[in-house]
Amino acid sequence: MNGAQSLIRTLVDAGVEVCFSNPGTSEMHFVTALDSVPEMRGVLGLFEGVVTGAADGYARIADKPAATLLHLGPGLGNGLANLHNARRAHTPVVNVVGDHATYHKQYDAPLESDIDAVAGSLEGWVRRSEHTKDVGADAAAAVAASQDAPGRVATLILPADASWGDGGETCAPIPPRAPHAVDATTVKNIAEILRSGEPVALLVGGAACREAGLLAVSRIATATGVKALIETFPTRLERGAGLPNIERLGYLAEQAMYQLDGIKHLIVAGTRAPVSFFAYPGKPSVLVPEGAKVHTLAEVGQDVVKALADVAALVAAEVEPVLQEASRPALPSGPLTAQNWVEVIGALLPEQAIIADEANTSGLLLPGATAGAPRHDVLTLTGGAIGFGMPVATGAAIAAPSRPVINLQSDGSAMYTISALWTQARENLDVTTVILNNHAYAILRLELQRVGAAADGPKAQELLDLSRPDLDFVKLAEGMGVPATRATTAEELAEQFGRALAEPGPHLIDASVPPLL
Amino acid sequence: MNGAQSLIRTLVDAGVEVCFSNPGTSEMHFVTALDSVPEMRGVLGLFEGVVTGAADGYARIADKPAATLLHLGPGLGNGLANLHNARRAHTPVVNVVGDHATYHKQYDAPLESDIDAVAGSLEGWVRRSEHTKDVGADAAAAVAASQDAPGRVATLILPADASWGDGGETCAPIPPRAPHAVDATTVKNIAEILRSGEPVALLVGGAACREAGLLAVSRIATATGVKALIETFPTRLERGAGLPNIERLGYLAEQAMYQLDGIKHLIVAGTRAPVSFFAYPGKPSVLVPEGAKVHTLAEVGQDVVKALADVAALVAAEVEPVLQEASRPALPSGPLTAQNWVEVIGALLPEQAIIADEANTSGLLLPGATAGAPRHDVLTLTGGAIGFGMPVATGAAIAAPSRPVINLQSDGSAMYTISALWTQARENLDVTTVILNNHAYAILRLELQRVGAAADGPKAQELLDLSRPDLDFVKLAEGMGVPATRATTAEELAEQFGRALAEPGPHLIDASVPPLL
Repeated sequence: MNGAQSLIRTLVDAGVEVCFSNPGTSEMHFVTALDSVPEMRGVLGLFEGVVTGAADGYARIADKPAATLLHLGPGLGNGLANLHNARRAHTPVVNVVGDHATYHKQYDAPLESDIDAVAGSLEGWVRRSEHTKDVGADAAAAVAASQDAPGRVATLILPADASWGDGGETCAPIPPRAPHAVDATTVKNIAEILRSGEPVALLVGGAACREAGLLAVSRIATATGVKALIETFPTRLERGAGLPNIERLGYLAEQAMYQLDGIKHLIVAGTRAPVSFFAYPGKPSVLVPEGAKVHTLAEVGQDVVKALADVAALVAAEVEPVLQEASRPALPSGPLTAQNWVEVIGALLPEQAIIADEANTSGLLLPGATAGAPRHDVLTLTGGAIGFGMPVATGAAIAAPSRPVINLQSDGSAMYTISALWTQARENLDVTTVILNNHAYAILRLELQRVGAAADGPKAQELLDLSRPDLDFVKLAEGMGVPATRATTAEELAEQFGRALAEPGPHLIDASVPPLL
Repeated sequence: MNGAQSLIRTLVDAGVEVCFSNPGTSEMHFVTALDSVPEMRGVLGLFEGVVTGAADGYARIADKPAATLLHLGPGLGNGLANLHNARRAHTPVVNVVGDHATYHKQYDAPLESDIDAVAGSLEGWVRRSEHTKDVGADAAAAVAASQDAPGRVATLILPADASWGDGGETCAPIPPRAPHAVDATTVKNIAEILRSGEPVALLVGGAACREAGLLAVSRIATATGVKALIETFPTRLERGAGLPNIERLGYLAEQAMYQLDGIKHLIVAGTRAPVSFFAYPGKPSVLVPEGAKVHTLAEVGQDVVKALADVAALVAAEVEPVLQEASRPALPSGPLTAQNWVEVIGALLPEQAIIADEANTSGLLLPGATAGAPRHDVLTLTGGAIGFGMPVATGAAIAAPSRPVINLQSDGSAMYTISALWTQARENLDVTTVILNNHAYAILRLELQRVGAAADGPKAQELLDLSRPDLDFVKLAEGMGVPATRATTAEELAEQFGRALAEPGPHLIDASVPPLL
């Protein structure tokens, strides 16, 4: 058994069943070894940002890591932006980054670069597996590290000779570290604050954004009257009819400060006290109102769901959660607008949908329109590195082949990782992509005003404009084997969206939605 | 004057006239400041790999740096692969990477990451410009550092508050460090080896791949009978009728070892002794024949052109260089093959063309077919990070608007940075892209055999195949505003290539060229 075989076998034994791959020469033994381990599925991406984003989306839905296969430092670099998002999502991801043979590195061949430094920037787990006999053990350690609470990116750098060498040894799975429990005193103290009668907000994130956590949050809020909020960019938010509908903290600092206005206590659970996404001249970085005190129920990595249940047991023992009624907007008509496209989605969202949400400014009204739709998951842009939606949708569809995946995708962000469509076509994934095509980096037009940038000249506007030439996403999709249509009215969008959901395989709708702002 | 204005003004004063940009919120003041400095041209790329590759291509042709504008760590990560190629090319590039405001960094906002570590992996010049008053001086230092011989990637990290703050000061240009001269003793010693009568090869790279260096090399080779070779992946190789036609060292170790077989002395000038691009089981990393001695005439960063001229003065005082005669292949006919498409290019290559060569395996026969074509420049994949051709062609066309740029582009590699086509359309650049579409990662099929990978199963083959579904580059190009056609015969390619060259603006030809190997 060579190193590559021991690696793949160990990954499979630890529950890693999919390897999103963009290999090169140094990974050829790994590629060959795939055929000796039938349980491992290899999925090709045409660009590493697709590979890493797909691994993120997969793990968010499968609750376990996928592997990636990347080609040396440039391959890791190309995958870095979506690994940044995975890092911020605390998604478990196991990168396998091929490197030159150990004895070859000294020669500084053209593709030589400092992989360790780039991998280290992800602040996860990094190991270089230099000896064939250690590859299996290192792989088991990587899987465990990726899943140690709260989850992280683990990167195993695999020199070509460690991969091709004989003497590989598989390694049994290593149990990952479970989340630490929150102690009873903390639970009691938080319960007291909740019952203090003072204005309190409870901001939750991480695992608390799923059913068990949301039910506890709703009970707490119902019993105590505190304001419950979900972090701005949850990794995976379960919502829809039958689940508590809890407001998300706004992306814009102005929104968030409005939502938190007047509170005296902010309790955070599974997330941190909110800070502004960017700094703006003369505006605060911290979004906690002045004078309000921050209390931590559960740090990121602690067992936030249990902690919320414990708090609920104290303050809401007899209280039921408030569940969202089923309700859908009526199907709208007329030319598409930033207001009505979300109603189409809300009206037609299928059961058990997974939404990969990179609608950005176009999606500001989406949560209202889908609140009472059938239960669904929303995956959001945790790290702010755009080019997230298409790959994450791809990975989510691999993780849940029986669920419809819907990628709500702004036009500018789509272009970073557009080749995810090809992987969707190859794997025949049930992904429906709706491009919100406003022909601009609309968010930057907004930000240009918000940062107080003095002038607003033609050169600046040119760098935010995507209309010269217009991107034709129908042709782009068809060029990669994905059937596509164009919608300019709500009726067209509804008809096309419904048809895309009804037919198997990927579809794309290029929806002409003018900017909201 | 704010920091951003001082930065752009200083760049312009130092000769930096183009900023390839993919900005985000933290760069909005920079974007706005572009309108206050009319001499700076902003060129939008839809992905950072396009931005950095364009800066590389621009500098290779303009002989001076362009700036890039990148959005925090993920933006730099997306640009890293083509910066790796620029680093290996010793191309001067000035990155401006926006970062959070200095006071905002402590809050670990979602887009916070270790920019310094990623920038440091490029082993060039990195500085963080924390105070508005220093931004101008730091910018001048960055431009100089990028141009210090032999050229490098300089990265200036620009916190948002340093950019928007008042009190910016421009800085006069700082003269870059010229290449060190090679001493007379070294020149004399090399001359003696050349005249020793023993088998000698002279391998040149860097600046020696341009006219003055090539003329000296040809004179030396003609006078002494030594074998002259050009490094495998030159940054910019001047060739064609009227210039010496000097063989390039092969990419495959087997080719290179054949070319160097039997030599007793290898003289390197402006490059290093050759090593295998990758390691292969049981094959040597160093490509210098056993027993042969390596002598360095000029290190990378020394004045290799002057050194070669000095050597030529000693060993070839009265000898003329051998210049390539003008000659073109006849226009071929019939279905496209790996043999005949290069003849079409050779037959029709226009005067003063710039070739961005990422044809990879499809291009193995190209040098022979274009040797006697009109004088042209060839830009090659110096660092081996694919996704190079389209962005580099884009930048080269901005640097030389009056010259035809031809991007010979393999299909797999095209998909990493395909959105460069959009920038070509927006800027109406005279770039003709020929996609060599063999529906596979053909080089990996070759490498799979070469690394001795034991099996060759269906899963491995699947990861090297691009035919399910086929990529339709005509639609992809049209989707980004670039007129495109498909060629399946040599006649069609000739007709379409000729027409694309005759019409202004970008064009793409999707050429169905079966694999050579």
